[in-house]
Amino acid sequence: MVNELRAVEWVGDGLRLIDQTVLPGRFEHLDVRDTGTLVDAIRRLVVRGAPALGVAGAFGVVIAMIEAERQGWDDAERDAAVERIRTARPTAVNLAAGIDRVVPFVPKGVEAVVAEAQKLLDEDVLGNRAIGKAGADWILARAGKRPLRVLTHCNTGALATAGWGTAFGVIRELSELGALEVVYADETRPLLQGSRLTAWELEQVGIPYLVQADGAAASTILRGLVDVAIIGADRIAANGDTANKIGSVGVALACADAGIPFMVAAPWSTIDLSTPSGAGIPIEERPGDEVLAWAGNPVAPEGARGFNPAFDVVPARLVTALVTETGVLEVSEGVTPRD
Amino acid sequence: MVNELRAVEWVGDGLRLIDQTVLPGRFEHLDVRDTGTLVDAIRRLVVRGAPALGVAGAFGVVIAMIEAERQGWDDAERDAAVERIRTARPTAVNLAAGIDRVVPFVPKGVEAVVAEAQKLLDEDVLGNRAIGKAGADWILARAGKRPLRVLTHCNTGALATAGWGTAFGVIRELSELGALEVVYADETRPLLQGSRLTAWELEQVGIPYLVQADGAAASTILRGLVDVAIIGADRIAANGDTANKIGSVGVALACADAGIPFMVAAPWSTIDLSTPSGAGIPIEERPGDEVLAWAGNPVAPEGARGFNPAFDVVPARLVTALVTETGVLEVSEGVTPRD
Repeated sequence: MVNELRAVEWVGDGLRLIDQTVLPGRFEHLDVRDTGTLVDAIRRLVVRGAPALGVAGAFGVVIAMIEAERQGWDDAERDAAVERIRTARPTAVNLAAGIDRVVPFVPKGVEAVVAEAQKLLDEDVLGNRAIGKAGADWILARAGKRPLRVLTHCNTGALATAGWGTAFGVIRELSELGALEVVYADETRPLLQGSRLTAWELEQVGIPYLVQADGAAASTILRGLVDVAIIGADRIAANGDTANKIGSVGVALACADAGIPFMVAAPWSTIDLSTPSGAGIPIEERPGDEVLAWAGNPVAPEGARGFNPAFDVVPARLVTALVTETGVLEVSEGVTPRD
Repeated sequence: MVNELRAVEWVGDGLRLIDQTVLPGRFEHLDVRDTGTLVDAIRRLVVRGAPALGVAGAFGVVIAMIEAERQGWDDAERDAAVERIRTARPTAVNLAAGIDRVVPFVPKGVEAVVAEAQKLLDEDVLGNRAIGKAGADWILARAGKRPLRVLTHCNTGALATAGWGTAFGVIRELSELGALEVVYADETRPLLQGSRLTAWELEQVGIPYLVQADGAAASTILRGLVDVAIIGADRIAANGDTANKIGSVGVALACADAGIPFMVAAPWSTIDLSTPSGAGIPIEERPGDEVLAWAGNPVAPEGARGFNPAFDVVPARLVTALVTETGVLEVSEGVTPRD
């Protein structure tokens, strides 16, 4: 069952990750006991999803502490290892936030840091349940209780979080309330988190869905086949501009044109008040080769170069509602996350 | 050289097609001498692109005539074979138009039909040159002569036409005028006509380009990296609504939001005056499996279903300019193709 799924789990002496690069074909774990392996796992997207990265970062500090002891590192060497984890991917604010959350506990020793990281994990699951409920309530108050057709992009389920999911959590809540007809899952090129991971999680929990090419999203929305689109977020600026998986802003533009709500679901920790607007969010550019080949087979001619930004920024004016564990902000109406 | 490329060519006793399903890995021809093979080739996209389908349809009538003689078919059997070609794919109006163009010559015999089909082919190449020139002139009159960054979706080059290309022809014209910096080629899922075919043609003619995931198009445009987007068309309704490869309307929405021109380049024969608006254009829905697997490898879990509309409709209000061989119509300004 998906609600037992743990993308990130502390197993006493290391971090157990579900290897998301081999799903849905294989379900395998990767056990991580050194920071080099963790950095590599984060870069290769063995673990991904902003909230899951936050938890991985927090436990990464523990791994750095144990590794420092084993290797005889001084504090500067240990801190440099933590820094490498922090910068393994630039866009999701949660990775750094997870690390910052536990760093004050380092002087108290490994057990104190493990406890704080576990607390972060538990809070994320509880927060996701709250997000799911708040999001579903907001939708149903507007749409009336009827079977809804929901579009989502990328993966925001248990695999992307400590459990349950953010946008995916809203979808599960709607499903449990008997208010879900079907999910349109964008495949999410180039790495196919939608067809590989979201479809797999939807299959696990028995929610009806259709996988579509990312290019189909706008027309599916304009044809009136979708009631609401819900995505997650990797970083939300103080003005409500939202960085999320590449392809998100195209979904938002189509929702605005069609007059349906475009919702962002994320824990409050995804909001980065130190970044005034989307212009200040660093956008990770991944290797062009991810676009140019599939499963080792080239799909472009020799000599081709790929342009592969991993995220885009949805301007606040296109975000109908931002759902966090503390409630729903109607961002495009002028309510911004700035208190 | 691409200007020697012939996606569709009559070779005396049959139709020689470049097999576009195996590019860019292999360059192979398929020789077609019976209507069953032609219908299959059209369905499998061995030959594709609205203008190329028009030419294939016209020569398909010749193939039906020769096959009828060989097999001893009566006229009704021959006409039924032509009908199977006409309906092999529903969206592109050119397939039917190419057939209708030569049918009046059938009573005059094979040579007369071959001549008329060849005339259609030659006219398409000339028309594409005119489209390229008119489109480039329109762009340069607005942008000034500077190196432009052009985004395109799907393939509209020599492979999609009788030669030179439509939207691709405008790009080539800009390049020959020294007014092209780079082409952003959307990969065009699920069948990757962008990364497989457009990139290959750009490589052949030495035009700089970047391949990007379809989901990246909107943000590339919103980030100010694109000066103009140009696409082809499979059918244009009388009011200017334009059916084209799935993903086109998302590009159009982003152009409108960013305030850059969204151009459609197509021969006049793509305009279907008998269809009042986009609502009347039949949208081909292809097998969901095209989205769910790549090169035989499943990318979605067992049990997944795909939603795979092959085309979408760009509303006329989003079409800044429609370029045909007769000139440029500024559709979104209220000039519609209806005379």
